[in-house]
Amino acid sequence: MERKTGLILALDVTDRGRALNIAKATAGHLDAIKVNYPLALACGMEIVRDLAKDAYVLCDFKVADIPNTNRLIVERAIASGASGVVCHAFAGSDSVKACVDAAKGREIFVVTEMSHPGGQQFTGRLADELAKVAVEAGAKGVIAPATRPDRIAHIRKIIGKLEILSPGVGAQGGSASDALKAGADHIIVGRSIYEASDPAKVAKHLVEEAQKQF
Amino acid sequence: MERKTGLILALDVTDRGRALNIAKATAGHLDAIKVNYPLALACGMEIVRDLAKDAYVLCDFKVADIPNTNRLIVERAIASGASGVVCHAFAGSDSVKACVDAAKGREIFVVTEMSHPGGQQFTGRLADELAKVAVEAGAKGVIAPATRPDRIAHIRKIIGKLEILSPGVGAQGGSASDALKAGADHIIVGRSIYEASDPAKVAKHLVEEAQKQF
Repeated sequence: MERKTGLILALDVTDRGRALNIAKATAGHLDAIKVNYPLALACGMEIVRDLAKDAYVLCDFKVADIPNTNRLIVERAIASGASGVVCHAFAGSDSVKACVDAAKGREIFVVTEMSHPGGQQFTGRLADELAKVAVEAGAKGVIAPATRPDRIAHIRKIIGKLEILSPGVGAQGGSASDALKAGADHIIVGRSIYEASDPAKVAKHLVEEAQKQF
Repeated sequence: MERKTGLILALDVTDRGRALNIAKATAGHLDAIKVNYPLALACGMEIVRDLAKDAYVLCDFKVADIPNTNRLIVERAIASGASGVVCHAFAGSDSVKACVDAAKGREIFVVTEMSHPGGQQFTGRLADELAKVAVEAGAKGVIAPATRPDRIAHIRKIIGKLEILSPGVGAQGGSASDALKAGADHIIVGRSIYEASDPAKVAKHLVEEAQKQF
């Protein structure tokens, strides 16, 4: 994913009109729009197709199934216009490899440690191994938590030049500048932007903060 | 999930007409129809609504996100008519609890060890802990692999009277009778049924085999 602004919008709304309006308003400030299942299930995969006309769409489907099912999910996301898909490493190397193969050159990002408190229970303990699975499977990058910048720095040592996308900035308590200083390439922000009265203004401010770290 | 036949159909096709035809043909032999993302993304959540008119639909969405996103996904599945939803435990206890709370009395099933080879890499090592998360969160049951019946018997000791749904029968190599003997309550079968020239005949045969173990 090319870094122009360093900002990915987590578009976690479920109304189609609202999703498209926020995407349009913030487009100039974003490297990508992240779409999760609540939006895709509410609006159908047409929402990915529509957003992908003007943006890099990252389908954050946290794919975590057997290889054959992973393949079918990634194929569907790519066919709908996604440029990237997020998968879990927890289901095993074969499941991640199935995602990379199905992406046919589009980008797969692998979750290491998750950003919420429960993320430390299992994914935190295994983060090193999960990151190694990402490297070995040929993923484009990993997801690592802005809520724990020391973990970003640690995972950077394992993955080398792979990209790090970092969620948890804003409502979850993480700081954009701390995450970028620790080694993240892109920060992922949701509620702080889409719940704002002026989403574009918040996005612009975040980009200005981010770019001080480039 | 009430056990009448012991059989759950994994309806892993992506064509709406084919899905509805197979569901109709096999309905009398099934305790539930399991719907995964490839079908839901291809056909929209209307397919869940349509299947749920005549069947217990289990949305096998392997939900594995932060609590707020898990809640939104489970709410969407339930609102579409699902009677049960499958989630992962490795995203942490808080994420599983969010699923149970969002289900509002509908049933949550938690993945322990996965049935494919990569399932042994992480989920197998942590299966005991994952099963305990299911018990403590108030899940209705767990998913445990028919491909490794000894693991079903082991997980049964941890979860007590919770239900065990067991995938991997047929194309993945597991045996229905071995899984049920080991302690599974329901077996999950996909390709062996939906790829058969006569799906109802295969389903009937599997139920006859299963019922010898009840």
